[in-house]
Amino acid sequence: MIHINSKRLMGTIGTLGEIGETADGVQRLAFSSEDKAGRQYVQDLMLQAGLKVKVDAAGNIRGRVEGRCPDLPAIGVGSHTDTVPNGGKYDGALGVLGAVECINRLREESIVTRHSIEVLDFTNEEGTGFKSWLWGSRAMTGRLNNSDFLLTDHEGVSIGERLQGVGGDIYKIEDSIRKQGDYCVYLELHIEQGPILHQTRIPIGVVTGITGRIALEVTIQGFANHAGTTPMGNRYDALLGASHVIQAVNSIATQDEICRVATVGIIRANPNAENVIPGKVNLSVEFRDSHIQRLNDGLSRLRDICHKLGLDQGLDVNIRQLGVTNPVPMDHTIQELIGEVSSALGFKTRSIPSGAGHDAQSMAEITRAGMIFVPSVDGVSHSPKEFSTDLDCANGTTVLLNTILASDENLD
Amino acid sequence: MIHINSKRLMGTIGTLGEIGETADGVQRLAFSSEDKAGRQYVQDLMLQAGLKVKVDAAGNIRGRVEGRCPDLPAIGVGSHTDTVPNGGKYDGALGVLGAVECINRLREESIVTRHSIEVLDFTNEEGTGFKSWLWGSRAMTGRLNNSDFLLTDHEGVSIGERLQGVGGDIYKIEDSIRKQGDYCVYLELHIEQGPILHQTRIPIGVVTGITGRIALEVTIQGFANHAGTTPMGNRYDALLGASHVIQAVNSIATQDEICRVATVGIIRANPNAENVIPGKVNLSVEFRDSHIQRLNDGLSRLRDICHKLGLDQGLDVNIRQLGVTNPVPMDHTIQELIGEVSSALGFKTRSIPSGAGHDAQSMAEITRAGMIFVPSVDGVSHSPKEFSTDLDCANGTTVLLNTILASDENLD
Repeated sequence: MIHINSKRLMGTIGTLGEIGETADGVQRLAFSSEDKAGRQYVQDLMLQAGLKVKVDAAGNIRGRVEGRCPDLPAIGVGSHTDTVPNGGKYDGALGVLGAVECINRLREESIVTRHSIEVLDFTNEEGTGFKSWLWGSRAMTGRLNNSDFLLTDHEGVSIGERLQGVGGDIYKIEDSIRKQGDYCVYLELHIEQGPILHQTRIPIGVVTGITGRIALEVTIQGFANHAGTTPMGNRYDALLGASHVIQAVNSIATQDEICRVATVGIIRANPNAENVIPGKVNLSVEFRDSHIQRLNDGLSRLRDICHKLGLDQGLDVNIRQLGVTNPVPMDHTIQELIGEVSSALGFKTRSIPSGAGHDAQSMAEITRAGMIFVPSVDGVSHSPKEFSTDLDCANGTTVLLNTILASDENLD
Repeated sequence: MIHINSKRLMGTIGTLGEIGETADGVQRLAFSSEDKAGRQYVQDLMLQAGLKVKVDAAGNIRGRVEGRCPDLPAIGVGSHTDTVPNGGKYDGALGVLGAVECINRLREESIVTRHSIEVLDFTNEEGTGFKSWLWGSRAMTGRLNNSDFLLTDHEGVSIGERLQGVGGDIYKIEDSIRKQGDYCVYLELHIEQGPILHQTRIPIGVVTGITGRIALEVTIQGFANHAGTTPMGNRYDALLGASHVIQAVNSIATQDEICRVATVGIIRANPNAENVIPGKVNLSVEFRDSHIQRLNDGLSRLRDICHKLGLDQGLDVNIRQLGVTNPVPMDHTIQELIGEVSSALGFKTRSIPSGAGHDAQSMAEITRAGMIFVPSVDGVSHSPKEFSTDLDCANGTTVLLNTILASDENLD
């Protein structure tokens, strides 16, 4: 078992975190000047670690070291370095900089693996600028939709033009595609972004799968009327109806135990005036679960509740399905490898589903994929308060390094 | 008993309704060019009816006809001709144009009353432009606050400048004030704006009083977190908390029967993003009732519920009182006069509280005040769908005319 150099790792996380530093957080929105500076820093680190660096047509940075057996597929390791607005310095960065640290340690130990290793820094994972996330990893696995090519950001600049700014080329996007057999495994180290590891004081999470998600819009149509002159019995109050939908969505993941989590994130009332009974309310609803059947059951239950609510309160309640992301299970063999390596290193582990999406879910389309989680203090992420301890970051990276070696030994 | 000229009345309502006509409604926001055109039309009608017209320092239009006994106080009759955005053609207009019609009929019948009669068209009743309603009638009764003089509209123009545009003068506002003894009564004809008369098929509502109102802002502070990675048990969901407040507010006027009506009109969630648990929600809450004690009881009940909710869900729930408008009872003698006159005319009446505010509540500070309501079809107002039948408008105006005469006979 080899250990990583914690001081060097935390040094690079610290330095990258200074690029796009805000008052209390970090902001490197994909394609922004801060993101470009961050990407440059990553490329410099890769070169220093002896990797051959290439930016593909989708803007993904690939740093490669050749293995002893050129006919074997590569081991992919990585994550992303773009951030959400005013985010933290661990989300994504840990996976990329941890991978570079692994390469450094292998070189220091003069270990040349059988498989080539590719460190991957994917373009626009967060999807903040273009509202289309996992862009780079979906490009690389041939999963982009037509609409993904037609995006413009808030400045009206097209994704093609933005891609050019980071060394990509939308007209050659096909060149970026990797297929089944190009990799034997993809490994991603990431902060949990939830509270489970922190609360249970377990340093390593073995990710069982990436949650699926159904996104819905619920529209409650009532009748806007004067709040002073309309008796209670004559009201068709869309906001009162919405309050029942909000509670029903919550119940689906609590009392009913149908889906793992269920959230109403957006509410918009109309006309939204102090002295007018709300005539119309829109809600964003999402269910997440590792089983597609449970997502569908959640939707059915919501349909029943909304139907009854409409009849009871004289409201027109409509559910529109905006999108479904299927759950993506992580590879069982890789989960076992991560577990064995962790045990050998003396780290407790627990199996944990990922509630957030990750580039690993794209990569799972073309290879075995595995993810290692480390604790997020208080479960906070996408926030300046995002924090993982140096020890947890180092332990996770050591597990990543030894999983690379175990994969190299066990996979073909 | 004298009857009014329905065709002439509806002609003037139709003509005024064409000023500021929108696709399907009417818009004459106070101080706008449409409002000015409407005010000019009203002044022309007043002059044609033989009234002496004056615009006071607060911009109120006063059309006066002298009575036989110059020492007696005047009979005030009126309402307003400004509208809400995209409103209807009856709210306010009926009271002003009905009053002018009464003057026309008196002249045609060669009736000179003992008291002088003043037809009043109050400035900025709706308070849409300056968010300060009943401005003209509050000015005239000396009820303006300091803040009412410091208002600017969305274009940044001060109320003083706007007043000048309609013939007022903010520096002489004291000149507009009328006192106890200047009027013996103020009468206002208005559409109900609620559904009660329409549903019960009663043509005349005798208004018992103008509702009081407590306006509150409820803030629910939770903790914004990732909707995918935060387990249900770890959430402090401000929107879920808000859903309970919305239902509690409703209960206070339904199951609990504490206040006549209770409404949450505005909701704002933060950050209001699809995949984030809402961290903070603001609600506007209002209670309305004819008894101040019931308003206070409603507030106490809401405080208890919010306190318990905060403890149960780990949320910080705060109630801020924005303002209280005391209930204003209408004069009993005038209510009786309206009832007697209606009976003599063969119209069924019912006593009815006004859920909306009216200039009559300002005038009640300096004289006996009475209001006559006519049915609003389906109880709709502040909407292009606002509608009252020609017959109901005519009947209400005939009741107004004969109440003027009964007041002239019975009051000193």
